[in-house]
Amino acid sequence: MFNIALLGAGRIGQVHAANIASHSATTLWSVVDPNQEFATRLATQYQARQQSLSEAMTDPNVHAVLIASATDTHADLIEMAARHGKAIFCEKPVHLDLARVRDCLKVVKEYDVPLFIGFNRRFDPQFRRVKTDAQAGRIGKPESLLIISRDPSPPPAEYVRVSGGMFRDMTIHDFDMARFIMGEEPVSVYAQGSNLVDPAIGEAGDIDTAFIVLKYASGAMATIVNSRRSSYGYDQRLELHGSEGLLCAGNILENQVQHYGKQGCTSALPEHFFLQRYKSAYAAEWEHFVAVLRGEAVPDCSGDDGERALYLADKALESLRSQREIVL
Amino acid sequence: MFNIALLGAGRIGQVHAANIASHSATTLWSVVDPNQEFATRLATQYQARQQSLSEAMTDPNVHAVLIASATDTHADLIEMAARHGKAIFCEKPVHLDLARVRDCLKVVKEYDVPLFIGFNRRFDPQFRRVKTDAQAGRIGKPESLLIISRDPSPPPAEYVRVSGGMFRDMTIHDFDMARFIMGEEPVSVYAQGSNLVDPAIGEAGDIDTAFIVLKYASGAMATIVNSRRSSYGYDQRLELHGSEGLLCAGNILENQVQHYGKQGCTSALPEHFFLQRYKSAYAAEWEHFVAVLRGEAVPDCSGDDGERALYLADKALESLRSQREIVL
Amino acid sequence: MFNIALLGAGRIGQVHAANIASHSATTLWSVVDPNQEFATRLATQYQARQQSLSEAMTDPNVHAVLIASATDTHADLIEMAARHGKAIFCEKPVHLDLARVRDCLKVVKEYDVPLFIGFNRRFDPQFRRVKTDAQAGRIGKPESLLIISRDPSPPPAEYVRVSGGMFRDMTIHDFDMARFIMGEEPVSVYAQGSNLVDPAIGEAGDIDTAFIVLKYASGAMATIVNSRRSSYGYDQRLELHGSEGLLCAGNILENQVQHYGKQGCTSALPEHFFLQRYKSAYAAEWEHFVAVLRGEAVPDCSGDDGERALYLADKALESLRSQREIVL
Amino acid sequence: MFNIALLGAGRIGQVHAANIASHSATTLWSVVDPNQEFATRLATQYQARQQSLSEAMTDPNVHAVLIASATDTHADLIEMAARHGKAIFCEKPVHLDLARVRDCLKVVKEYDVPLFIGFNRRFDPQFRRVKTDAQAGRIGKPESLLIISRDPSPPPAEYVRVSGGMFRDMTIHDFDMARFIMGEEPVSVYAQGSNLVDPAIGEAGDIDTAFIVLKYASGAMATIVNSRRSSYGYDQRLELHGSEGLLCAGNILENQVQHYGKQGCTSALPEHFFLQRYKSAYAAEWEHFVAVLRGEAVPDCSGDDGERALYLADKALESLRSQREIVL
Repeated sequence: MFNIALLGAGRIGQVHAANIASHSATTLWSVVDPNQEFATRLATQYQARQQSLSEAMTDPNVHAVLIASATDTHADLIEMAARHGKAIFCEKPVHLDLARVRDCLKVVKEYDVPLFIGFNRRFDPQFRRVKTDAQAGRIGKPESLLIISRDPSPPPAEYVRVSGGMFRDMTIHDFDMARFIMGEEPVSVYAQGSNLVDPAIGEAGDIDTAFIVLKYASGAMATIVNSRRSSYGYDQRLELHGSEGLLCAGNILENQVQHYGKQGCTSALPEHFFLQRYKSAYAAEWEHFVAVLRGEAVPDCSGDDGERALYLADKALESLRSQREIVL
Repeated sequence: MFNIALLGAGRIGQVHAANIASHSATTLWSVVDPNQEFATRLATQYQARQQSLSEAMTDPNVHAVLIASATDTHADLIEMAARHGKAIFCEKPVHLDLARVRDCLKVVKEYDVPLFIGFNRRFDPQFRRVKTDAQAGRIGKPESLLIISRDPSPPPAEYVRVSGGMFRDMTIHDFDMARFIMGEEPVSVYAQGSNLVDPAIGEAGDIDTAFIVLKYASGAMATIVNSRRSSYGYDQRLELHGSEGLLCAGNILENQVQHYGKQGCTSALPEHFFLQRYKSAYAAEWEHFVAVLRGEAVPDCSGDDGERALYLADKALESLRSQREIVL
Repeated sequence: MFNIALLGAGRIGQVHAANIASHSATTLWSVVDPNQEFATRLATQYQARQQSLSEAMTDPNVHAVLIASATDTHADLIEMAARHGKAIFCEKPVHLDLARVRDCLKVVKEYDVPLFIGFNRRFDPQFRRVKTDAQAGRIGKPESLLIISRDPSPPPAEYVRVSGGMFRDMTIHDFDMARFIMGEEPVSVYAQGSNLVDPAIGEAGDIDTAFIVLKYASGAMATIVNSRRSSYGYDQRLELHGSEGLLCAGNILENQVQHYGKQGCTSALPEHFFLQRYKSAYAAEWEHFVAVLRGEAVPDCSGDDGERALYLADKALESLRSQREIVL
Repeated sequence: MFNIALLGAGRIGQVHAANIASHSATTLWSVVDPNQEFATRLATQYQARQQSLSEAMTDPNVHAVLIASATDTHADLIEMAARHGKAIFCEKPVHLDLARVRDCLKVVKEYDVPLFIGFNRRFDPQFRRVKTDAQAGRIGKPESLLIISRDPSPPPAEYVRVSGGMFRDMTIHDFDMARFIMGEEPVSVYAQGSNLVDPAIGEAGDIDTAFIVLKYASGAMATIVNSRRSSYGYDQRLELHGSEGLLCAGNILENQVQHYGKQGCTSALPEHFFLQRYKSAYAAEWEHFVAVLRGEAVPDCSGDDGERALYLADKALESLRSQREIVL
């Protein structure tokens, strides 16, 4: 049984707490959060203890930490956990600044602890099946990837201001997905974007709608289609076209009931929110982390993966600003 | 070039006139209809002549007649055409009275002319593909057939009164389809029905909603689901389940555009009316009849097929009235 | 917190054990099974105790029993639990003999304990949505119901011999579903059946393929399409046609990835086995039973429901044997 | 009745001949083709005469010409027809050289004859519905357009050499479609491409796989996904995302029959070839040209439209070569 200290008791921390508690090999040992109310509620729900950060880090019973706190604390917490020899599960991103990410990863390497970065979509059964089907040769040689990723509704402008911008905050998932599916690094990136959804986002210096084109050394290409808003729920699809076929991962609908009437045939909407849409992905990534804890696997999604995705986000922003394709 | 005399210039006659005129091997030679206005309009449109019935029958230039007149005239016209040595394409049914059908078919046999009965749905590309796929062994041994057949809206009660009843008028298409797909004769029939759509239909002594169960000597079974009304267009589907798979022929939609919005994902309705839904079937059955005229084929759907479908309709009615399964 | 004694540690008992254990309001107090190996394994997994039947029945800490033992023990266990004042969750059916069911329900009534019969499909979110959408008037007045229910593969002949026959063992779910969706009792039943899947089933005196037609006082009708085998997984669908629309609950696919290649576009199969297919239904019925335990609900599916479904199965068998529609 | 001289009796000329002949308002008056065999066959089939080019141009009975000859003859033939006062239907493109196009259009303007450029996809009922639904406000303000356009198989390298390159030959349809759907001119274009399908295409100096990003003054964007090869037929789809919804025009399948078996559920492939896929579009564009001949409409797709699409193709090529976004 592995004891886990959960750092951060907010929305995403609650998702992980449930997976930690229901897995037969892990126990939610403690909850750490400066917000006492959040910490107490979660600790009570799962019969865990509350600890201060230093208590958790120095507690020899704690085998691993799950970092689900505010983005700007991730790198510091990773370093601290590494220095105390804890295995680390960290929500994406490591940090919004690439130099800081690199420094942090050096510390992790020095202390040689496992670090898993929670790009949850890699563990979505649909997207994973596209990858495994492609690897099994079902579509020949991959030639073009299309990722459609639209959030149900935009974040508030206050969040946008500290988010690092759309590419580092939202598109970073799609950069990671492109890397995951294609299995090779892009050699160039081009980005185009607009502020169409909410003027406040534009006033905060950001965009909310984007198209990105990646090119690979093999000649293959990928496109990412992003929007901060979709009136019909959380639009999460991808298509991989190859020399001998096409694989399409469609949306997961809220239900399978169809209604036929005078207006046409109406199906349910896609799952509206990421917690429902990626519920099985969150459980699967925890299952994977348990395998890492057991020494049966190395992290499928490492600190280097976190760094690479952020690098692509930075370069996409450079492309957007310079109206040029950026060679990587 | 085969010259065709069209007997009947109503709605279905107009469909056939277009197919006759556009086929490179046939000419619409003449139009015969007691309604002068209808006859003139159609003859003018296709630069055909108008003839009286006896003129058409005795005209040596006429190779074949297409009977698209009122149901109660079919048998008489078939016999007359047979006696004049014309090849015959007759809209279903031959007659509503089984004894009259049998007498009529004897005359056809005596004069040895080709007689094709227009069960158009046999020529629908979707249903035909189910049959050919099943014959090719794609689902192993057929075990159960499900036919869903719902009209967009009920006929007026005046029509119902002279229609011979729902089984002889509407379900007869489905009895023929079951015979076409299964390729064996049923050994029993059971029918259940209700008057749910329009009270006037009940007052006319008929039903408008029915379920029918057929059983075959092989142990296979078929079910027909009928309604005189469907709020979402013309519902025409079938499913054939076999020992190694299932074949489903779905509806043909009006278009392939999907709309996603707050209410869900909406697709187009099925083609609303039989003329659109079975447009390609009407063209294909004419193509087949041309092959018959050329002596390259015998009618895929003969007078005997017309007789057998009517026999099943009669027996279904007997089942409905007696609340028993009827052994055939 | 409600303590539950689980009677029966086999396949279905394991499903319920997981739901009992993961629900925040219930505890798996004890496991009772004459098979010591099964009992020990399950008790160990969930840190529950093992009890003998009489220990569980007399233990004042036990609030409710979940009966997941062999079918022929259900009625006896229900009576015993009723006499000890325990709330009862019993897997379907109460018993295969209608008279025995009635006696048993009298005892339950006498001791006035809640009895829930586990017709799990009533809690499937798809089928439930059809019912609630219909009740909300989305398709007008219900007119015809079509239930397609095919198992992935037939049971062994030894099981068939003690199963009470296909109608009491398998179709009983569909009879209950028809009652659930239509909300009225049928006034007649007709059944047709064949032995097509496995000759051993025929030798055991049973059928494996069936069509059933139910008629209601309102004139509405229902058809059940059954097979003990489907080469493409567990086929569980229903369609409800009404005066103003149609509701279709399709299969739940194993995944949403589509592959396009030379052979066509291939989608995943339906979930293959009932445990996956109805996973959410099992969780939802337990949630409902917790509400019953809390006194917030009466059983949505009672002993009377179990009796009515069995009665329909008996009458369907009578119809099959007599080749007649049976008036109820 | 309008008499049409068909210039070019090849594959696409045959499509138009059928539509001209079957339309009640037009007659295939004559066929002009230096290839006598082609000309004779087509003239015979439709009982039309053969004419030399100058005979057709000077024949006062000829109301309009349909130019379906080799691409490099289009501009000369348009000018000749304009000078002879004929209405003109010309297959796309006007010419591969933009300056030549502009000169040609000046002549058309001078002689003031109607010129229709056959961008057939504008008349596809699916794509047209997307436009009309968007115009009707069904998805709010259009924000991003996705066009997926893949040919079933690549052209031979000899054709590629004279084709003007993929953007001028193939993508030009998609540039026109983007203009048609969005209804505004782009302000920038970016293109990325590869030679993945056939090395001979690369040796001929061209690409066969491309992604293009267009940006509009409104902030809206469009992406075009192109390949010269698709193993699963002719892939022709588009999606238009707006502030209040999404419209998707999917592929037209060869049939609506689905097969369920051990391997999954298999649907038919998209229509394989452009002649089938756009059959109704070719008929509809002819219907439109008849309205132009009647003076009831001006060409929906004019010489200016042809010029604009070619301009975008030129600029995309400039982007591909310079690895920059090109401002328009």
